[in-house]
Amino acid sequence: MKFCSQCGATVSLQIPVDDDRERHVCTACETIHYINPKVIVGCLPVVGDRILLCKRAIEPRYGKWTLPAGFMEIRETSAAGAARETWEEAAAEAIDLALYRIFDVPHISQVYLFYRCHIANDAFGVGPESLESALFKEEDIPWDELAFPVVREMLGEYVEDRKSGQYPIRNTVIEYPRR
Amino acid sequence: MKFCSQCGATVSLQIPVDDDRERHVCTACETIHYINPKVIVGCLPVVGDRILLCKRAIEPRYGKWTLPAGFMEIRETSAAGAARETWEEAAAEAIDLALYRIFDVPHISQVYLFYRCHIANDAFGVGPESLESALFKEEDIPWDELAFPVVREMLGEYVEDRKSGQYPIRNTVIEYPRR
Repeated sequence: MKFCSQCGATVSLQIPVDDDRERHVCTACETIHYINPKVIVGCLPVVGDRILLCKRAIEPRYGKWTLPAGFMEIRETSAAGAARETWEEAAAEAIDLALYRIFDVPHISQVYLFYRCHIANDAFGVGPESLESALFKEEDIPWDELAFPVVREMLGEYVEDRKSGQYPIRNTVIEYPRR
Repeated sequence: MKFCSQCGATVSLQIPVDDDRERHVCTACETIHYINPKVIVGCLPVVGDRILLCKRAIEPRYGKWTLPAGFMEIRETSAAGAARETWEEAAAEAIDLALYRIFDVPHISQVYLFYRCHIANDAFGVGPESLESALFKEEDIPWDELAFPVVREMLGEYVEDRKSGQYPIRNTVIEYPRR
């Protein structure tokens, strides 16, 4: 950030009064510009004993498999955002959403909220950000071709949880890059 | 947002290519400026059969009672942020944090992540954003003087959960203002 989005003057990094860390503060109108973490919302869509994955058509991780997910938008709920991403990436209507997994990824200032879901009529397709979509049984999941650590971790937990039929909501921190 | 934070030129609202909603786009350098929901992190600190609340010294809801909470900062985890807020507002060191409650508040584009916790040495004080801090038994909670709907809802759930000793992680949507 170099300029004030309110008045167009330059900003400088300084610690505002009553604050304890540097912020971008406008040198003219004194507006304080806060930068905060972003929320990623997504789904883990299940059809019987198979999981819906999408092959990414965009960077980063072009060509790798992932779960439908993306940035939460203003004025939507996290579940609505997760369903929206499932529609956009897999042309599937997410239903029966149940919160399943929360990740903190402080290295990139992101919080992930993932929902388990079914998809209406078991129907899916390929959205503009995907090269293809497909259903995978556990033994067919492309573990070495998954796009992100959060996807690998969540899928591993899910196939374990499925054995008991218990899906506790978990939250952990992903240290990234992996050590 | 009126000016581009990258180059200082004016921005205009337009729908970028491959997007489906209006964004602030720079008329000169074409940077797309996304606005996303913010995360509020907080704690529900427990000392025996009492809950630690803070009386707000700031607007909104000056003089009302609340749980320590505030905007999550970049590069911190949600639990670290919740502990930081507990220190800032109640001079208490949050320990034993366990995720408890997630709220979507789409009307104001916020997601809340609250942790149950204990406090080190059962010690607390008054932070700069609080007029006072105090421990409340269930029957003494100032239900009509609570600052926010999320606080009222969570405290009500907590006193119920305590009867069974089971604290499931819940997530719901707060429609705000209340109908």
